[in-house]
Amino acid sequence: MRVYNFSAGPATMPLEVLERAQAELIDWRGSGMSVMEMSHRSKEFVTVAAQAEARLRALLAVPEEYAVLFLQGGATGQFAGVPLNLTAPGAAAAYVNTGSWSAKAIDEARKYVDVHVVADEKDSNYTTVPAEGSLEVPGDAAYLHLTLNETIGGVEFPYLPDAGEIPLVTDASSTMLSRPVDVSRFGVIYAGAQKNLGPSGLVVIIVRRDLMGRARPEVPAAMDWTAMAEADSMLNTPPTLAWYLVGLVLEWVEEQGGLTAMAERNRAKAELIYGTIDRSDFYSNPVQPAARSWMNVPFLVPDPALEKPFVAAAEAAGLSGLGGHRSVGGMRASIYNAMPIEGVQALVDFMTDFEKQNG
Amino acid sequence: MRVYNFSAGPATMPLEVLERAQAELIDWRGSGMSVMEMSHRSKEFVTVAAQAEARLRALLAVPEEYAVLFLQGGATGQFAGVPLNLTAPGAAAAYVNTGSWSAKAIDEARKYVDVHVVADEKDSNYTTVPAEGSLEVPGDAAYLHLTLNETIGGVEFPYLPDAGEIPLVTDASSTMLSRPVDVSRFGVIYAGAQKNLGPSGLVVIIVRRDLMGRARPEVPAAMDWTAMAEADSMLNTPPTLAWYLVGLVLEWVEEQGGLTAMAERNRAKAELIYGTIDRSDFYSNPVQPAARSWMNVPFLVPDPALEKPFVAAAEAAGLSGLGGHRSVGGMRASIYNAMPIEGVQALVDFMTDFEKQNG
Repeated sequence: MRVYNFSAGPATMPLEVLERAQAELIDWRGSGMSVMEMSHRSKEFVTVAAQAEARLRALLAVPEEYAVLFLQGGATGQFAGVPLNLTAPGAAAAYVNTGSWSAKAIDEARKYVDVHVVADEKDSNYTTVPAEGSLEVPGDAAYLHLTLNETIGGVEFPYLPDAGEIPLVTDASSTMLSRPVDVSRFGVIYAGAQKNLGPSGLVVIIVRRDLMGRARPEVPAAMDWTAMAEADSMLNTPPTLAWYLVGLVLEWVEEQGGLTAMAERNRAKAELIYGTIDRSDFYSNPVQPAARSWMNVPFLVPDPALEKPFVAAAEAAGLSGLGGHRSVGGMRASIYNAMPIEGVQALVDFMTDFEKQNG
Repeated sequence: MRVYNFSAGPATMPLEVLERAQAELIDWRGSGMSVMEMSHRSKEFVTVAAQAEARLRALLAVPEEYAVLFLQGGATGQFAGVPLNLTAPGAAAAYVNTGSWSAKAIDEARKYVDVHVVADEKDSNYTTVPAEGSLEVPGDAAYLHLTLNETIGGVEFPYLPDAGEIPLVTDASSTMLSRPVDVSRFGVIYAGAQKNLGPSGLVVIIVRRDLMGRARPEVPAAMDWTAMAEADSMLNTPPTLAWYLVGLVLEWVEEQGGLTAMAERNRAKAELIYGTIDRSDFYSNPVQPAARSWMNVPFLVPDPALEKPFVAAAEAAGLSGLGGHRSVGGMRASIYNAMPIEGVQALVDFMTDFEKQNG
């Protein structure tokens, strides 16, 4: 029986994608071999790769003046990749801290640049984002970095900050493809694939081409955006199986109606679960409503001793991966694109029952 | 119909592995989800990961004082990872140049260290390795780097150089698991997975633990061996699907009888194809017999105009991926562990027929 998997990433994928991958796993479209056995330089795989890029460009309406890269190392790799590609030694960069992933990006950036933390939501216990218009970005900052959605805190920017001429750089790992976004507002968008895009082991980077050519000489070749763009992300052997699977997921998103349709579904799913929490005196979510994530919904029960029973009973009911991140405890439901509304309905039904029995 | 795939990497995988992966792709062993959907922190995936490491340790008889890492970025990533993890700025390192991959490793290392090229086989057109006992490694070298097998030239070290106290570091991407190797002779062994280990997108690194803790402060976290070893290669989200598939391949190698059995099979396959080449006046392989690769067999026909017809006719006969690397032309048969002797027999039969028709 297929469970509803609420893990934060690696995460649930569309069943249709898994079925298609399974059907063609041994013999990819009559080629006599698996897609994972094909040379990345073969015309077959080059087509797979190009189609995935074309689909991503179409879905996100990526302007022509942006390159799209498919690399390895995850968003964590890009925590270093961003300063290494965008700055010279001694440079400064501005960062917004809205949670665990922002904080990790900041720690890593400090290896390479002078970091200005221009807003720090640690005092709010990471329950909101800075007010729109409140950010003051020093003129010496090479870029302004923010984490569009914080997977652990469940905090998402409901607006895009404006840093004027300073390029906006974002880790969009856990919100990419969940709704339309105006790519032209960004200098760089990067996202680990293992939330809305596919399996882990691949990171997508969308870079405005005028930001290329600024890399430090010591950037590792495998992280060099300019060299990778020139080589169509094949300066070294790319993660071909993950790239292919991302392509299938993108095709599925197209078939669902693209990002407008995804946004409608995701809004409905988020309203269902936040509504259940807010109507209850038993469950709570600490995040300011306007900054609540559509993708990751952390919630608490009144007595922490009920957390383990909740997670165990949910698991037994076919609702998997609901334990909160080990750093914060509680519960968390990640409801990415591939989580159907039926899964969220099953979860809120379970929550209602659990409250009746334990409230 | 399944073809015999002679690609250099990504490369053919054992059919039994693909069949098992296909059977459990949607529902991994009754979990109700795909292995690629499982949290990397789940006890199920942690077990998958640990079992793969245990199998690799058993197959290679890795001594306890070595850590085994499963990271992203391929061997190319480690071309930077090696100097970043083993040296301080201003240090020197010794490199042997036996072909295209050595040369790439050297180019990348020059970003970080003063490179002493202690042997350069470019003058031999990369047809051999330095004579045993001939290497003179300067005492200031932090390590001695060599490429155990050169995928493009088809040149493999038939012996292991002795650098005394200086740690031996090797790119073993295209020879790993093809035969037993004495791990204790090395400081570091690294290998991209996409030859004998599984799909692309994963690199295995075997590091003697006393070499940990030497990383430069500016090493990207995703490439930091010490931090990764402490986090069981999960400082960030690992490439879980690739890791699982590597585990299946390792299980398959065990079932075949381990590395002694693989070595017997690989020796027989290599003898079959080199024997065919050497008995012919039509085909040729320029590599010094003692340094011939068991894994990658480049060969030429007398007239370069026959290369395209050869590759096309082979393709039509179900023998795929025989074109030489675009940098050198000619033909190349990669005959990794997963290539059965029947595939090599089919290739030499085809070669004999082609010679009769064109010789």
